[in-house]
Amino acid sequence: MKIAILSIGNELLSGDTINTNAGWMGRILTEIGCDICQHITVPDKKIPISNALNQLIDLNPDFIICTGGLGPTEDDITRQTLFDFVGTESKFDEDYWQNLTERFKRFGIQIPESNRNQALVPVDGNVIQNPVGSARGSKFKMKDTTLISLPGVPAEMKAMMTESIIPMIQEKGLIPKCIRTLRTTGIPESALIEKIAPVIEKDHGCDIGYYPSLFGVDVRISHADLQPVDSLSKDLYGILGVSIYSEGKESIEEVIVQLGKEKNKTISTAESCTGGLVGHRLTEIPGSSDVYKGGLVVYSNESKIEMVGVGKGTLEGHGAVSAETAESMAYNVKNKFVSDYGISVTGIAGPTGGTKEKPVGLVYIGLAKNDGVKVKEFRFGNNRKRNKLRSSQVALNWLRLSLLND
Amino acid sequence: MKIAILSIGNELLSGDTINTNAGWMGRILTEIGCDICQHITVPDKKIPISNALNQLIDLNPDFIICTGGLGPTEDDITRQTLFDFVGTESKFDEDYWQNLTERFKRFGIQIPESNRNQALVPVDGNVIQNPVGSARGSKFKMKDTTLISLPGVPAEMKAMMTESIIPMIQEKGLIPKCIRTLRTTGIPESALIEKIAPVIEKDHGCDIGYYPSLFGVDVRISHADLQPVDSLSKDLYGILGVSIYSEGKESIEEVIVQLGKEKNKTISTAESCTGGLVGHRLTEIPGSSDVYKGGLVVYSNESKIEMVGVGKGTLEGHGAVSAETAESMAYNVKNKFVSDYGISVTGIAGPTGGTKEKPVGLVYIGLAKNDGVKVKEFRFGNNRKRNKLRSSQVALNWLRLSLLND
Repeated sequence: MKIAILSIGNELLSGDTINTNAGWMGRILTEIGCDICQHITVPDKKIPISNALNQLIDLNPDFIICTGGLGPTEDDITRQTLFDFVGTESKFDEDYWQNLTERFKRFGIQIPESNRNQALVPVDGNVIQNPVGSARGSKFKMKDTTLISLPGVPAEMKAMMTESIIPMIQEKGLIPKCIRTLRTTGIPESALIEKIAPVIEKDHGCDIGYYPSLFGVDVRISHADLQPVDSLSKDLYGILGVSIYSEGKESIEEVIVQLGKEKNKTISTAESCTGGLVGHRLTEIPGSSDVYKGGLVVYSNESKIEMVGVGKGTLEGHGAVSAETAESMAYNVKNKFVSDYGISVTGIAGPTGGTKEKPVGLVYIGLAKNDGVKVKEFRFGNNRKRNKLRSSQVALNWLRLSLLND
Repeated sequence: MKIAILSIGNELLSGDTINTNAGWMGRILTEIGCDICQHITVPDKKIPISNALNQLIDLNPDFIICTGGLGPTEDDITRQTLFDFVGTESKFDEDYWQNLTERFKRFGIQIPESNRNQALVPVDGNVIQNPVGSARGSKFKMKDTTLISLPGVPAEMKAMMTESIIPMIQEKGLIPKCIRTLRTTGIPESALIEKIAPVIEKDHGCDIGYYPSLFGVDVRISHADLQPVDSLSKDLYGILGVSIYSEGKESIEEVIVQLGKEKNKTISTAESCTGGLVGHRLTEIPGSSDVYKGGLVVYSNESKIEMVGVGKGTLEGHGAVSAETAESMAYNVKNKFVSDYGISVTGIAGPTGGTKEKPVGLVYIGLAKNDGVKVKEFRFGNNRKRNKLRSSQVALNWLRLSLLND
């Protein structure tokens, strides 16, 4: 199945918005067995949009998926441009307008007149429902190519792709590839590749992709048949073991919440340099309230003393960023919240605040359990946001491994 | 100055790599006064590359900048494809090959034969030096368009853009545009547009772009001259007032930390449904420790009672998601952390846990100051992650407005 993507928006060309939509669509569509033949980005202007559509149609794709330009403002010209391009009249959908008006009223807002264009629908074409926003999509048939128009807001585009477009494409009899993604954390990419080389270099016939991020490396294995994917996965599990935290899309936070529920264990957090990020990540998961009792963000020395009970002597003798402080934070937060695990993070996020002995990037992470407290030392880099993310990932991974073993 | 961008690489189309290069180039080039007229992404195949180049040349740009496909592996076909496209012979650069061989030797590696293609240079064209890698670029003159080829590795592309391409473009006598971005929060896009319509519809001559996100709407104004930008900005400030939280790139978190420092005020947080997100966002900013003292994540009812001192009667009588609980959380966290402001968030993030009276998306935010506590009620949507983000944004904006007025 051949797919072309057209992104519409001045903000994409000017770099004000990074186009994550095209990458997301590429990944999802490739996974179900499609080939993306070309991707064009054009400004919110009629002629460039039409020209790009003509160029893409010349490639003879099964689908062209356009995103962007369906909002209520006057620079949102995609809808009318597509109606003109395919040569259809439009009509005003009074029911939808009433529906939109009601929705706005529920939020206490009188609907602006400019939203009226979102109720315009093509006479020759279909409407694609938007389950999470006001801009609906359209679908047009043009010779051998189906032309789809979706909003550019990522959450809306993703919901509509998932609910409508993917099933529509799959209906046409796609042969999906067997794809398995082994998500790993705790091993740097180059070390991981070296470790698994003996298995990867064998004649397994699978395609392999490596997707490194701050959180770890995803290893994607694909093949037309299931058996080679199964066999290679087994070999990789043999080498990587518990460094693999999930298959597919499951995040490490989801794994923790799931394991916590299964094993009936609870967690509390005491965060200094991560500032609440560990709690934030855990609470992204529905049902996390069964496992996560809460936490303390102790950003100042006073709050480390007053709120989580780190001894004044500990702080003065060893400093706020020390194994001793991390130990005390983990131990005390576990007791205060009466949880099975207490995890603590204290470090120098940067860019300032480092010394020769305690450089920016130095982080201590503590884990208190019923049988005692352990602390580990880490040295991350100079970048504040990355240090926070890396610290939170190490803390979460330690929770995961403990839950696995307990 | 009109610029077209051509990205070459299968991994970009399949979404295995997010194309951050195009966005980066768009932003840098827009800032110096260029217009990006179109961006195309094609696979590592000769015919699609040539076709895309022909399409871009038809737009008559001053420059076409290609990235990708200059590596040493056999799927890196950009170099030869461009030589064929412009009709030039190539020659082998023996000096560069010796240089590369030496470089590899210094790392203890014997240079692979496959790297030889990186020493090929065009007879009719120029070489662009790569200060950080082995793949050099090329430059070709074609009628009115200059065709540039750069490697796709972001660090190499950026170094070459900065050292060679930007100066080359600027030499042609570029007049940078005056650009100002007014960042707003708290007004939905359509309502904002209606509000500012009387000013926008005037004959100011500026280009206007609207960039909505979950956090608010950025309004970007640009013009060749400063005066119209100044004048329109002033009119927009007249209407939008303190809904504008910054100009340019400054985030609302940065504004809060800056205001807190200026006014010598401190903040603490008591978070339920946001789970630490407000603290996390504040601590993304270097120097936030001067302003943010810390907080409590009280995710369970027990922790609301034990840790932040919400009365058992309040919880039983009004529920964990109530104005009374939010009030108590804000008041108590302010006292516990001895801060000037205590902000609290409690709500039903979803997707479950809602009732008819208290639906998913219902959120109470409380702010305690020295002169008392106020609570506001909000109704967001059904999406857990969005509810958390929206709640955190409203809480931060309330802190900002209080800091402005106090």
